[in-house]
Amino acid sequence: MNQDETALFSSDLVLEMEDVINVSSLKHKETGIKVDNVVIEGIPVSDVTITDQGEKNTNKKAGRYLSFHLADSDGEKKNVVQVISHAMTSLVESPERYKKILVVGLGNARVTPDALGPGVINYLNVTEHLDVKPTPSLSTFVPGVMGVTGLETEALIKGVVKETKPELVILIDALKARHVERVNRTIQLSNTGIQPGSGVGQKRQSIDQAYLGVPVISMGIPTVVDAVTVTYDAMTVMSKYFNKAQEALRAPKQRLFQGVLHVGDIEETEPLTGSEANKYFGLFGSLSTDDQRHLINEVLTDEGRNLIVTPKSIDDDIHYLQQLLAKGIHDYIENAANKV
Amino acid sequence: MNQDETALFSSDLVLEMEDVINVSSLKHKETGIKVDNVVIEGIPVSDVTITDQGEKNTNKKAGRYLSFHLADSDGEKKNVVQVISHAMTSLVESPERYKKILVVGLGNARVTPDALGPGVINYLNVTEHLDVKPTPSLSTFVPGVMGVTGLETEALIKGVVKETKPELVILIDALKARHVERVNRTIQLSNTGIQPGSGVGQKRQSIDQAYLGVPVISMGIPTVVDAVTVTYDAMTVMSKYFNKAQEALRAPKQRLFQGVLHVGDIEETEPLTGSEANKYFGLFGSLSTDDQRHLINEVLTDEGRNLIVTPKSIDDDIHYLQQLLAKGIHDYIENAANKV
Amino acid sequence: MNQDETALFSSDLVLEMEDVINVSSLKHKETGIKVDNVVIEGIPVSDVTITDQGEKNTNKKAGRYLSFHLADSDGEKKNVVQVISHAMTSLVESPERYKKILVVGLGNARVTPDALGPGVINYLNVTEHLDVKPTPSLSTFVPGVMGVTGLETEALIKGVVKETKPELVILIDALKARHVERVNRTIQLSNTGIQPGSGVGQKRQSIDQAYLGVPVISMGIPTVVDAVTVTYDAMTVMSKYFNKAQEALRAPKQRLFQGVLHVGDIEETEPLTGSEANKYFGLFGSLSTDDQRHLINEVLTDEGRNLIVTPKSIDDDIHYLQQLLAKGIHDYIENAANKV
Amino acid sequence: MNQDETALFSSDLVLEMEDVINVSSLKHKETGIKVDNVVIEGIPVSDVTITDQGEKNTNKKAGRYLSFHLADSDGEKKNVVQVISHAMTSLVESPERYKKILVVGLGNARVTPDALGPGVINYLNVTEHLDVKPTPSLSTFVPGVMGVTGLETEALIKGVVKETKPELVILIDALKARHVERVNRTIQLSNTGIQPGSGVGQKRQSIDQAYLGVPVISMGIPTVVDAVTVTYDAMTVMSKYFNKAQEALRAPKQRLFQGVLHVGDIEETEPLTGSEANKYFGLFGSLSTDDQRHLINEVLTDEGRNLIVTPKSIDDDIHYLQQLLAKGIHDYIENAANKV
Repeated sequence: MNQDETALFSSDLVLEMEDVINVSSLKHKETGIKVDNVVIEGIPVSDVTITDQGEKNTNKKAGRYLSFHLADSDGEKKNVVQVISHAMTSLVESPERYKKILVVGLGNARVTPDALGPGVINYLNVTEHLDVKPTPSLSTFVPGVMGVTGLETEALIKGVVKETKPELVILIDALKARHVERVNRTIQLSNTGIQPGSGVGQKRQSIDQAYLGVPVISMGIPTVVDAVTVTYDAMTVMSKYFNKAQEALRAPKQRLFQGVLHVGDIEETEPLTGSEANKYFGLFGSLSTDDQRHLINEVLTDEGRNLIVTPKSIDDDIHYLQQLLAKGIHDYIENAANKV
Repeated sequence: MNQDETALFSSDLVLEMEDVINVSSLKHKETGIKVDNVVIEGIPVSDVTITDQGEKNTNKKAGRYLSFHLADSDGEKKNVVQVISHAMTSLVESPERYKKILVVGLGNARVTPDALGPGVINYLNVTEHLDVKPTPSLSTFVPGVMGVTGLETEALIKGVVKETKPELVILIDALKARHVERVNRTIQLSNTGIQPGSGVGQKRQSIDQAYLGVPVISMGIPTVVDAVTVTYDAMTVMSKYFNKAQEALRAPKQRLFQGVLHVGDIEETEPLTGSEANKYFGLFGSLSTDDQRHLINEVLTDEGRNLIVTPKSIDDDIHYLQQLLAKGIHDYIENAANKV
Repeated sequence: MNQDETALFSSDLVLEMEDVINVSSLKHKETGIKVDNVVIEGIPVSDVTITDQGEKNTNKKAGRYLSFHLADSDGEKKNVVQVISHAMTSLVESPERYKKILVVGLGNARVTPDALGPGVINYLNVTEHLDVKPTPSLSTFVPGVMGVTGLETEALIKGVVKETKPELVILIDALKARHVERVNRTIQLSNTGIQPGSGVGQKRQSIDQAYLGVPVISMGIPTVVDAVTVTYDAMTVMSKYFNKAQEALRAPKQRLFQGVLHVGDIEETEPLTGSEANKYFGLFGSLSTDDQRHLINEVLTDEGRNLIVTPKSIDDDIHYLQQLLAKGIHDYIENAANKV
Repeated sequence: MNQDETALFSSDLVLEMEDVINVSSLKHKETGIKVDNVVIEGIPVSDVTITDQGEKNTNKKAGRYLSFHLADSDGEKKNVVQVISHAMTSLVESPERYKKILVVGLGNARVTPDALGPGVINYLNVTEHLDVKPTPSLSTFVPGVMGVTGLETEALIKGVVKETKPELVILIDALKARHVERVNRTIQLSNTGIQPGSGVGQKRQSIDQAYLGVPVISMGIPTVVDAVTVTYDAMTVMSKYFNKAQEALRAPKQRLFQGVLHVGDIEETEPLTGSEANKYFGLFGSLSTDDQRHLINEVLTDEGRNLIVTPKSIDDDIHYLQQLLAKGIHDYIENAANKV
């Protein structure tokens, strides 16, 4: 998780980049961002490729990012495990080439919303130390966080990689989201590594293939948001709601019966724009959504009110997510073993 | 903590009742609410009394509520312990009368922000079972929550009180706040007991002196807020900020030098009103603060977006608060022992 | 677990009573102890009945005790769950009569080997609080231990039973064994309740049907032994080993080839007796096994060396056992529901 | 802790080597073992030096070992902290030379008796990452255990040391004792590093100055013993008891009054020898103490009964010991800082 968590616009999710959100896959030559929406095991997966040109245009590293959402429904677990495993296979392309895998659990095991990575390790069955070991073999490492170790996490990982020589490194980390509904819901996998403190002024070393010398898969799930996000999301929900409510009011049925207004699901509704936005939300409403977020961030940060929060249910959520990722990794390894 | 946590306007803090906030202590005969602001051990404490008339006017039980805030500064701990102990003594009036104390830790020990009560118990030194026991003696009870026990918490407590016959019961519970800055900060003590699910349609039995048959002190600290609160607070901060910014812009110094605008601390600033509120925030801004909160709540709840959240730092915070309350209880007992 | 854990001969297992061990099922009229050995789901189960006469002859409460051992092999789990469930059904005779079940987890959740009971609760799905609840319904209670609550555990349970009126109470507790190989291995179920501090001078109230007013099933697994037990067991193993070794030495094969002596499994071998016992172990060896244990206990207790110990693997073991008992209870409830 | 814990005679304590126990400090030229008994802060400390010759004679690495016991009494804590700090200073000789310290917590954080090392880390305040850092600065590392990581612990440490370049490494590990009374009681500090699986056939790489390239202090406390140890200790206690009892019986007072025999404290009493040993314990008693232990080990190991155990109180004990070592390290750093 980012060290400086109050950073403006910080999000660890590629899906939350404006450029990705708005880009059409046709014009990806100019933007350097290619977005494919595919369906794996019945689950919609966003497949984003950022070229070197794209990296210059954004603050996201060039590479490939696969993202998908967990649904509310129970019983989806098996599907999700297969999507994770499928996405990993897709990112490494030739899973049979990597015969020694190291899984690194980033984050602080004693801070519940930051314990995603260390907790996944507890659910993995390592094999690297066995006399007769399967291929690929599995080992794990929990480096801890700088506030507890006093050491740069990237240096610890590099030292261990140099000494133990894995052929593929899987990094797992809790992320920060810019949309409340993604918290404990969106799973992002990429081959770009992890940038500690990305989006923050202070540049820190990326933990990636260039740095470690071996291919890297990173897996992350956002577990926290800031007050700016909660507020911005709520204002956007209200703007959409008012928009839909206006339509609903104009419907003949509503005009005839004048009953209680049922606005219903606003998933597909746009926020208000133009004079409507101004009518309901004044100058604030007239700002672009980007500027609205900027403004909320500026004010809350100035006043020291930009609290980082996590759902009250985090204790249960995090155990579920840890097990899910561990199962995904085991499934990937089994598939890779079958190809060896 | 309330069972139905999305309840409109739910707050467990008396300080957050509009009536308390607005009342002048002069006119308390009509409202039935008397507010005294005192200073104990250098810390400002709000001392609210609600009469039977006041109970009818509000949804808060008649009795006395003492509340105060933890400051940021370290090293305040000793003071705070004494304020807790002093407030307890003040609520029971004659501490020497209660020779057998039972502390009940409410909440779910396995949900971090709900573990305030069960955790306090871990820091208490019980004496009830000793052959030679001090007066007052101390015993503890952790009833668990209905989702885990399947039983009504109030019934468990009543059963134990009947069987073990304490002379004073201290209830400890994590609360829900309606203002972000109170989270893990405001300590409220009262002699009114605890109403599970207060403010929620479904009426549940109060855990109070009438129900248990012995005097009750309840101690609570809010550890969660909902998205409505985060949003409402942020909008209010912005409104205050704009108000102060307008003043700052009118200042000669700012007009002359046209530098970066420093708005500064807005603690004492009021939110915008009237045409100014409308200019910046449109129809939304024109609503009363009460209606704004109602509106945000209605929309977020309708759309299933009213997440309950807790600070990311909750793991550390909760341990600190548990120890604080335990020390306060020990200090109260020591003082009571000296009076016996 | 017994409060006074250094009590001479203390064991919570009926299987470890000399009378049970030696009794033949034929002469049970005099002893008041009837022992049947049956096989359930492929697992040998000892079914001991103690009559009122038997209670006078022993320090064990009259009633029925079912005991069995967990084997080393994996994959036995399903069988074991069914044996637990079968034994419970057998103890209550008419499971369809008990429509409201309360499971009580005895012991200290923060002392690993004592956390069996409280931990089982975490794996149970309660239903008592549901609007539409199955029959039998399930609720739970964790009273804590006297050192933490200051209160007598039996009083807490009685208070809760009076107030919530279950029709069947299931007590779960960690026990103490008198044989090392039973630790984390032997499961004992009975309908006699639990005697806190049984076998200890100080008589405490039994938690049983007479006290609570409803039928009681108690389930226990030993998780600790004392140094006396470890020592006595080791001396007995040595005595058996020497006995078997003497036989082995007399075998023609051994006399011919004079190779390394392979003593092999001594499970079926008796300890040395008479002059052989004296030869190898002197006066100590000449004592009855009972007196040997008495002597070791006397000396270690006198010298303050009778440490209570638990296997190093207790953290893993206890979680496994907690889940096992919880599954057994769920299976019992499912079976009972089918009979309603 | 040793990987192969059933290893014959395995002990991680130098104090438990026969050679150390029996050696007189006069003849240390031949044995290569020098034993000094000193008193630091009122606590007796054994100061053992093993030369290269001594290393050949024993299976203990050449270097210096400082050991002392925790007493029962409360309130000794401050003294003990100073002894730890003093011993560390003594082992490094010039503390002001080592400006960057890495503390490594060995063992499995999820196995209570093995969590000594990882737990100490939780109580340390690291400074290595601060912009303005004190000298010496402090950092920490928890490598995990091979069963969880699949990797050799020594390789992980070496990788981290190479990459982060500390000037002094402090290793903390839970040990295994050969005497029950040392468990959670004896603290051993040395400059020889740690030998994973020392005393076991399979040779593993030592974690020491030669391997890591920087000076090493290792700190250990035994937290487990095996059944052999418990048995051997109990038999020895009995032998001493009988010896003292015989003397007591011969005392005129006892002969006159024939009351209950009070044997009293046997701390200073020797076990029985010669014909007396044979009388009470037969052939077993006639063996040398060394051979007795060998025999018990052989039989229990053959029969798969050599359980590793830990005191029932381990949960509380381990937290106390973790804090103690952390305070010792902080005190050492403070002293070193004053010398810089």
